Amino acid sequence: MIQTTFYTPVQDDLAEVDIIMRRQANDYHPDLQKALDIILSSGGKRIRAAITLLVGKMFDSEKDEIHLLASAIEMLHTATLVHDDLIDGSLLRRGNPTLNAQWSPGATVLTGDFLFARAARLAADTNSVRVMKIFAETLGIIVNGEISQLFSRRCMADRENYEKRIYSKTASLFETTCRSAAILGKTNEPQIEAMRKFGYNIGMAFQIVDDILDFRGEQLTLGKPVGSDLRQGLITLPAIYYLEKYSRDPNAEYLLSEGCLENEKQTVELIQAISQSDAIQLSHKEALSYTDKALMILNDQPSSEAQECLEEITHYIVDREF
Amino acid sequence: MIQTTFYTPVQDDLAEVDIIMRRQANDYHPDLQKALDIILSSGGKRIRAAITLLVGKMFDSEKDEIHLLASAIEMLHTATLVHDDLIDGSLLRRGNPTLNAQWSPGATVLTGDFLFARAARLAADTNSVRVMKIFAETLGIIVNGEISQLFSRRCMADRENYEKRIYSKTASLFETTCRSAAILGKTNEPQIEAMRKFGYNIGMAFQIVDDILDFRGEQLTLGKPVGSDLRQGLITLPAIYYLEKYSRDPNAEYLLSEGCLENEKQTVELIQAISQSDAIQLSHKEALSYTDKALMILNDQPSSEAQECLEEITHYIVDREF
Repeated sequence: MIQTTFYTPVQDDLAEVDIIMRRQANDYHPDLQKALDIILSSGGKRIRAAITLLVGKMFDSEKDEIHLLASAIEMLHTATLVHDDLIDGSLLRRGNPTLNAQWSPGATVLTGDFLFARAARLAADTNSVRVMKIFAETLGIIVNGEISQLFSRRCMADRENYEKRIYSKTASLFETTCRSAAILGKTNEPQIEAMRKFGYNIGMAFQIVDDILDFRGEQLTLGKPVGSDLRQGLITLPAIYYLEKYSRDPNAEYLLSEGCLENEKQTVELIQAISQSDAIQLSHKEALSYTDKALMILNDQPSSEAQECLEEITHYIVDREF
Repeated sequence: MIQTTFYTPVQDDLAEVDIIMRRQANDYHPDLQKALDIILSSGGKRIRAAITLLVGKMFDSEKDEIHLLASAIEMLHTATLVHDDLIDGSLLRRGNPTLNAQWSPGATVLTGDFLFARAARLAADTNSVRVMKIFAETLGIIVNGEISQLFSRRCMADRENYEKRIYSKTASLFETTCRSAAILGKTNEPQIEAMRKFGYNIGMAFQIVDDILDFRGEQLTLGKPVGSDLRQGLITLPAIYYLEKYSRDPNAEYLLSEGCLENEKQTVELIQAISQSDAIQLSHKEALSYTDKALMILNDQPSSEAQECLEEITHYIVDREF
């Protein structure tokens, strides 16, 4: 977990969420318990859980219900990562071996399914039909995004497509996190809608910054090679800016005309060019435009410790490593 | 669908369920719509949907809610089949090519996930928190059963293990089908519990008969080779009975001492021996003991057209091809 002050007010709640998640494989096959332990110990920041808990605090929701929701959200997120890593053939996540690096594909598919099942059960345990519906809908959106990515042309430099993609992949769950936490609180429809938008905006910023870090990070920090998106034919915002602005760079030209890169040398050169260009700053500016909206929404809410922490998290999301 | 009289009272409802299921991929990626069409057109009998609708009729449940539940149950069942076929590498189901025979493993994993998501959404649309909880719990049980099977020793001739396995694999969903349909009806706890038990018993019988048919069917009818379970090292009830009774058959002896079969000749011989032995009748008798209990439960309910159809379905389940 991140050692920052904005986790402090929910430290005990996060510990409770961890307990709830770990007990989800009790009474099931011992290897599922083992898999769950491996996955939950692999160093996730639990930022979605922390946000759930803080929004819950803002709107004075019941402790038990909000703990269940935070667990459900993290569990759903974890389940999607398990299947993603399998499909991408990723062997490392956050520097740790992925489940599919250790288990057979069949066992990995089923473990992901099990985590979906337990996430759905946790969401149902909040006793809110509305939360359940949003939750199931969000899983559909995330999976639909993955499928679109799988079936879409590689190396597509398309801004609209990019926005849709990062919404499905990341912002939809942040949106659901904040919206559902507000639904469980003592609140009203305009506030629920405000929190949905808050979640959407921090989610969009979160993924843009992740995409920037993919060009800048060290392999050790990211747990994956630099420029891994471009290597997989995935054109993220920094690449979109670069291709728009430097279309006469021979490597950019090649990518745009051929729809792919020819060899490792070209790939490395283009990754380096993007990472050293102003495409990084332009992308970061776009992330900031999302977090600015998120901060404005927070400012309309009555001041509280939880609200201040959410402000700090918003700054953290956009300023990670900058 | 089966052309039998016991579907008649719910024919229109089944058509409605089909419409609901097919529209689940509207507004999603066109390939998901295509996958859903392939899957839904591949000739499933929709027996779980029919049972849901009939139990719904017995207890006078709301049409819209019971249609949603029936769709959710069929969708969940379909989702588990998609992942099962992928894991087993099955290329045919009901004589039709499976999704994984046509699509990449990644696309197949995600399509299964999408069906889970839509099933969960349909279950939530019943607006019953209790149904949602049972539904999510059942998915956990089914997946746990699959994982246990994947991790368990091959060729384990163990009756207790067999019962657990067929409960997870099949009876748990029949149980949930009948229980949830009763919950949505105008009914009381003892009746809900009676319907849960009814579902459990027909589910256990259903899987035993499936396991018998695996030894007797023609490849064309089953859409898979005869004795496919034993070929995969899965010891089902007919094999358990045979091994108990004819442990001095050299092939049985070999299997029991070595925990596997040595070659194709041995496998074919053993499959043939089991299929021609009284192990088939003994297994069928066991299936009948489950359906007898199911019929007793039905007899305690007030007489109605739906109740009579459920009786017929119970007979159909145990007498298929006998």
